[in-house]
Amino acid sequence: MSQRRLGVAVAQVGAVHVSDSRQRTLDRLIALLQEAKSRGADFVVFPELTLATFFPRYWMSQQEAEERYFEHSMPNPNVQALFDEARRLEVGFYLGYAELCPKEGPFNTSILVNKKGQIIGKYRKVHLPGHSDHKLDAPFQHLEKKYFQVGNDTFKVWGVDEVQMGMCLCNDRRWPETWRVMGLQGAEFVALGYNTPSINIHWPEPVHLRMHHHLITLQASAYQNAVWIGAAAKCGVEDGHHMIGGSVIVAPTGEIVAQASTEEDELIYFNADLNLGQPFRDHVFNFAKHRRPEHYQLIVERTGVGASLA
Amino acid sequence: MSQRRLGVAVAQVGAVHVSDSRQRTLDRLIALLQEAKSRGADFVVFPELTLATFFPRYWMSQQEAEERYFEHSMPNPNVQALFDEARRLEVGFYLGYAELCPKEGPFNTSILVNKKGQIIGKYRKVHLPGHSDHKLDAPFQHLEKKYFQVGNDTFKVWGVDEVQMGMCLCNDRRWPETWRVMGLQGAEFVALGYNTPSINIHWPEPVHLRMHHHLITLQASAYQNAVWIGAAAKCGVEDGHHMIGGSVIVAPTGEIVAQASTEEDELIYFNADLNLGQPFRDHVFNFAKHRRPEHYQLIVERTGVGASLA
Repeated sequence: MSQRRLGVAVAQVGAVHVSDSRQRTLDRLIALLQEAKSRGADFVVFPELTLATFFPRYWMSQQEAEERYFEHSMPNPNVQALFDEARRLEVGFYLGYAELCPKEGPFNTSILVNKKGQIIGKYRKVHLPGHSDHKLDAPFQHLEKKYFQVGNDTFKVWGVDEVQMGMCLCNDRRWPETWRVMGLQGAEFVALGYNTPSINIHWPEPVHLRMHHHLITLQASAYQNAVWIGAAAKCGVEDGHHMIGGSVIVAPTGEIVAQASTEEDELIYFNADLNLGQPFRDHVFNFAKHRRPEHYQLIVERTGVGASLA
Repeated sequence: MSQRRLGVAVAQVGAVHVSDSRQRTLDRLIALLQEAKSRGADFVVFPELTLATFFPRYWMSQQEAEERYFEHSMPNPNVQALFDEARRLEVGFYLGYAELCPKEGPFNTSILVNKKGQIIGKYRKVHLPGHSDHKLDAPFQHLEKKYFQVGNDTFKVWGVDEVQMGMCLCNDRRWPETWRVMGLQGAEFVALGYNTPSINIHWPEPVHLRMHHHLITLQASAYQNAVWIGAAAKCGVEDGHHMIGGSVIVAPTGEIVAQASTEEDELIYFNADLNLGQPFRDHVFNFAKHRRPEHYQLIVERTGVGASLA
């Protein structure tokens, strides 16, 4: 079998505080990009909402959020240096940011950029977690359902420098539908960025489970769809609010082949064999041969839990 | 929150050789049932195709297979003692067997039996692995696609002694659709039996991955649907053919709370809190609030991999 490889780098990003300047943040991302190139990377995964603090933890007006934390276009002068450096280094990347789009609504968005610095694909987060009301008794908010609208398109796969790439964002990773829709389009690599608070504000969930759930869903999803996954955290303590790290590269075997060991800016790398998933696609997960959509109808017929079919 | 508990036992069954008598096998199952009761079990999970050797590894005529390995009715005189003992002990159970059904076709089947010894539900395996041709160069066969027809109904959930129970078989566990269809019917507990050869006859897959894939898919699926899972292996070396053990009980947190440590007859037990999944169903996996079926259409529109939607 011919060798098809992708040098995958995941750029974990530590805390970005409210007071941090865009220039300071951009310098950190560019440093990670340069380190990625020096290791042999073809592609770098940055986190969700990379360019600012994870602002959905704060209650504010929509107008204030949009003025402070949203990008009005992409690229724009405040991120151009990252695009320029990526093009110079000939490295593609995935980047998450808050997208202002007056016609369709504000979105939690990610993009795929090729080695020429061109935006090839855009994804708007489908599975927005949290709430839209002000929870006065919570230690912090999780207002993604307030500041963002649900993505107006499904999960897609794009050819980026000859690799079939999909993308999703944070909470999307917990939903097997996310991965299957991309698997059915022949994804070979999926980029994912996330901001995951270590404390669950909805019930007293043991903190260690947050990392456990992150890892088991990625491992199972990589295996079940025979895809490589690069998952980048924004993590550490942002203005007193802790988020998990655990950035990983997961193989189509479901094995973690690289994992960040800090909660700071950290670059992990793996030289990924894109053919590793092929025997899975040919045999155990030969979808055409083994899937039975006639028995899966409930997945699209129902949204919530309903009566038993028995 | 009121306490609702289910004493879950998983009865792993070691090798059942071609030469073993039904009486010998039944005695082993009854001993496991009695041990389960002594630990406090309300329900016992037995494996897939529990009553005989894993015969799809052998090439033979359909007639020979049906005469040697299929049950012509359930219960029947050759298994009645298991039903009788379960009713006497007031323990429900799940059992996998080869079902002869001349009208609809032979199936790889499982049943749910309540504490009164009544069959409450029947499931016929949907995701048949393997092949139907005779692979002369393989070390053994995997002829489920020859001896069985694809199940003619979807995954369901039944009320068994006041617990909402679903069931599936072996290879079904690798497919997230299996679990989601049951999750959408409010399953609280899912029983699974399996026979998993440690050697993959289709390509030289590292043997350790067979156990890895078994565990990560169960852990992720339990979490993603907030269900308890009881998974029972038939395992060990049957007439020279090795199958993995690894029978487990998995909590809705995705944590393994009990795991078999042998490849022989072995009983594992856990006193399962049926409310443990409730905060997951109320928040992170509140399906009605967070699922977006409008973006999942591809899951039922396509069987195999197709073109990108981008």
